[in-house]
Amino acid sequence: MAFTLAEIASRFGGRIAGDPQVLIRQVGTLERAGEGQIAFLANPRYRARLSATRAAAVIVAPDAEALTTKPRIVCDNPYAYFGHVSQLLNPAPEASPGVDPAARVAAGARIAPSARIDAGAVVEEGAEIGEGSWIGAGCYVGAGAAIGPGCRLHPSAIVYADCRIGARAVVHSGVVIGADGFGIAFEAERWVRIPQIGRVWIGDDVDIGANTTIDRGAIDDTVIEDGVKLDNQIQIGHNCRVGAHTAMAGFVGVAGSTDIGRHCRVGAAAIILGHLSICDRVEISAATVISHSIRKPGTYTGMFPSAEHSAWARNTAYVRHLAELARRVRALEKRLQQKDSGHD
Amino acid sequence: MAFTLAEIASRFGGRIAGDPQVLIRQVGTLERAGEGQIAFLANPRYRARLSATRAAAVIVAPDAEALTTKPRIVCDNPYAYFGHVSQLLNPAPEASPGVDPAARVAAGARIAPSARIDAGAVVEEGAEIGEGSWIGAGCYVGAGAAIGPGCRLHPSAIVYADCRIGARAVVHSGVVIGADGFGIAFEAERWVRIPQIGRVWIGDDVDIGANTTIDRGAIDDTVIEDGVKLDNQIQIGHNCRVGAHTAMAGFVGVAGSTDIGRHCRVGAAAIILGHLSICDRVEISAATVISHSIRKPGTYTGMFPSAEHSAWARNTAYVRHLAELARRVRALEKRLQQKDSGHD
Amino acid sequence: MAFTLAEIASRFGGRIAGDPQVLIRQVGTLERAGEGQIAFLANPRYRARLSATRAAAVIVAPDAEALTTKPRIVCDNPYAYFGHVSQLLNPAPEASPGVDPAARVAAGARIAPSARIDAGAVVEEGAEIGEGSWIGAGCYVGAGAAIGPGCRLHPSAIVYADCRIGARAVVHSGVVIGADGFGIAFEAERWVRIPQIGRVWIGDDVDIGANTTIDRGAIDDTVIEDGVKLDNQIQIGHNCRVGAHTAMAGFVGVAGSTDIGRHCRVGAAAIILGHLSICDRVEISAATVISHSIRKPGTYTGMFPSAEHSAWARNTAYVRHLAELARRVRALEKRLQQKDSGHD
Repeated sequence: MAFTLAEIASRFGGRIAGDPQVLIRQVGTLERAGEGQIAFLANPRYRARLSATRAAAVIVAPDAEALTTKPRIVCDNPYAYFGHVSQLLNPAPEASPGVDPAARVAAGARIAPSARIDAGAVVEEGAEIGEGSWIGAGCYVGAGAAIGPGCRLHPSAIVYADCRIGARAVVHSGVVIGADGFGIAFEAERWVRIPQIGRVWIGDDVDIGANTTIDRGAIDDTVIEDGVKLDNQIQIGHNCRVGAHTAMAGFVGVAGSTDIGRHCRVGAAAIILGHLSICDRVEISAATVISHSIRKPGTYTGMFPSAEHSAWARNTAYVRHLAELARRVRALEKRLQQKDSGHD
Repeated sequence: MAFTLAEIASRFGGRIAGDPQVLIRQVGTLERAGEGQIAFLANPRYRARLSATRAAAVIVAPDAEALTTKPRIVCDNPYAYFGHVSQLLNPAPEASPGVDPAARVAAGARIAPSARIDAGAVVEEGAEIGEGSWIGAGCYVGAGAAIGPGCRLHPSAIVYADCRIGARAVVHSGVVIGADGFGIAFEAERWVRIPQIGRVWIGDDVDIGANTTIDRGAIDDTVIEDGVKLDNQIQIGHNCRVGAHTAMAGFVGVAGSTDIGRHCRVGAAAIILGHLSICDRVEISAATVISHSIRKPGTYTGMFPSAEHSAWARNTAYVRHLAELARRVRALEKRLQQKDSGHD
Repeated sequence: MAFTLAEIASRFGGRIAGDPQVLIRQVGTLERAGEGQIAFLANPRYRARLSATRAAAVIVAPDAEALTTKPRIVCDNPYAYFGHVSQLLNPAPEASPGVDPAARVAAGARIAPSARIDAGAVVEEGAEIGEGSWIGAGCYVGAGAAIGPGCRLHPSAIVYADCRIGARAVVHSGVVIGADGFGIAFEAERWVRIPQIGRVWIGDDVDIGANTTIDRGAIDDTVIEDGVKLDNQIQIGHNCRVGAHTAMAGFVGVAGSTDIGRHCRVGAAAIILGHLSICDRVEISAATVISHSIRKPGTYTGMFPSAEHSAWARNTAYVRHLAELARRVRALEKRLQQKDSGHD
């Protein structure tokens, strides 16, 4: 599979500078790409790499066009453009249809003729698998669950009963969708389990990273809207809503009943407490704890700084006495004021 | 399945106000419940929802009884009461006994006649599965492991050799019980593995959320006592003890050899370091790091506050200079004291 | 299996004090070891346990030799020595070679004659399994993946296509190696997936704890070098390098494209942001966020202190006003200076 720059630009737009007949067979990084490979520059911080690259061609923004004489495609969003080129050169493998004899599919499950079910997968009664979907080895699709068309469940992904995934999802290994939310009530020194009778409802074009967990609703559903992208080891509690096109990096935790808007971006290991509401277009920095609702778009941060251990120990000791320090500053201010006013 | 309020109250107590013959078929939320559904009010913050609800009946505390004229059950602990009602209306599915032909059960494993083992599950030599227990698809129960009666292991739960789970456990998908603790010794610039020869010992009525991991002891056992409730993606290190009826929210991490008391509550993403001792009835807030033993019941918190990014950046810069700021305040105090004492 | 102290010392060195003919059958802790068991003292904090122990023998450092009259082995590194003794007494179970009839091995996979593949495991086309390696129940080894000799993949470990694991790895249950890195580009209010075409390359003698995830590279590979030890629930992002003999405790997260040196130690729940470089021999404390590259060996910390809730609330309120507090201190300093200089 190979395409000329001209063929690429005719598909995805952009302007060609240099030889349009250069043949591209694969993508690469500026540092390591060689003959037949195309690289990209999106972050100005890596400009030095552009001059040194041995790539056959590059994708650049207009302001970097003059930094190289390589054959290049000039466009507004080089990283997204690169994504399209890489998808062209690296199409997702097609599922050859069929149910492996070592899969276990219940008699009442509805498997689309073009779907593929691999060895060791289990699809329970009343479950549906859409056209072209590929259920990997050892996956589990519970009773009454529905997987839309064009989905890929990688090996050992788990979907509990009655949950729903829309079209074109990519669900990685170890994902658990629809386990019980954490609903317990304290009574007479014991915990009473609250049955979790809601479901998980997932829209179209959602990606879910390895070992991420999304709990079913306690009563109503947990909802992940269209186009949401979740990295690995994320936890979404029961009854949350994650708005369309929101992206979350690894280790993000969202406690129960929190509503997150559309087009939000949540950095790695951020924690959003329960029963909050986050409006659209909020960016939450990595390692930040959100303990209040956010009603204004913008960037929110709460990362505690690290330092060499001795400097950390020296400064952090005073965190434990900040209120006292503030009291002393107030006393000094008052004392000086008394002096100034002559009452002293 | 349907019950009148009168039938419900005769089972679980409480006092009925309004029509005791209202028929209840399902639970619901105050916002969405409709005909045939019962909702509850536990958090005074949601009182406004009570007047607007279209639920057929509600469960309320005495102080909220007058806020509605709906048929209602008045009781001291509406949330726990709701749990009992929901369990009545949503009984856990019964396992139809039997070993699926696509399960692999070793000749020397002891499977109770009323137990169920699903397709793809593996039960090794010497393992025991108790009466009425249900081992889901793709689960693994290692050699010599024991699963008590009435347990539910959801698909792909893993129990390593020689570990023990008591009665009525609910173990969700992706849970790993009994993997090696993190025991390594440094020698000659290399790590030496310390074999982990202890086990995991889990009491009765324990729930374990999806993808949680509990490591086997290095030498002695890791112990989870009766009634402990663990949410998703928790990590319990080797040789920990978690005392009876303690509950932990998602992402909690407990490092090795830490002893946690009974009736503790640990908030989401809290981290408890190793070799510590936490007494009974300690509450640890979400996103808090515990680095010292706790000997007094109470609530402990260490959440770093988040803010709009620019405010965070402005304030946090001074965290790195707190010791210096404190020194300057001391110098000011001394200077003023000198002035006051006339030594200046 | 039993060894005298003399036999043990002839294998692993050290000096015997007391009866060299004591027979040792198992290891134990100072508190619980009894007849036939050997314990160790590495942490001076536990010296009191040494005098009380009922162990048959102990392993101690020279400075603790005189604290007991028990038969003992005196050596420089009692914990590592203990590790060797425990490995001797608790050898890893040998895999009896063979492919279980309920495993699914592709025709073109190359399985070494001495390897073992358990029930429900799937090994795809072109994959290789080395001599003596043991692929547990329900594991998945993708097309073209290579597992070196002497490896142990515990049940339900997942290795995606084309990834490579060196010799003698221990990979625990729920581990996912080679899932897609989190590569997405924003365009026209939607996320574009960047195909992740790199692999994961893992060296020799690497241990990987339960439910840890290591993502495949976006273009080039993600690399884990020889002797790395990873605890449970760690996340390593795409294109990271983890240098040889680095150890990471549970919940550590490393975002994409970060380069970590050799012989580093990373404490539990530490987060290392993306595109950073950490030099060799860096120690990062538990619950610390690293947001800048580190170029000097040493210990780095950023743990926010916890306290009783009311003290925390009192002090933390001032964190939000630190810049203001610093401004007030500056104003006081200026005011006093004016007074001192007589300009007032």
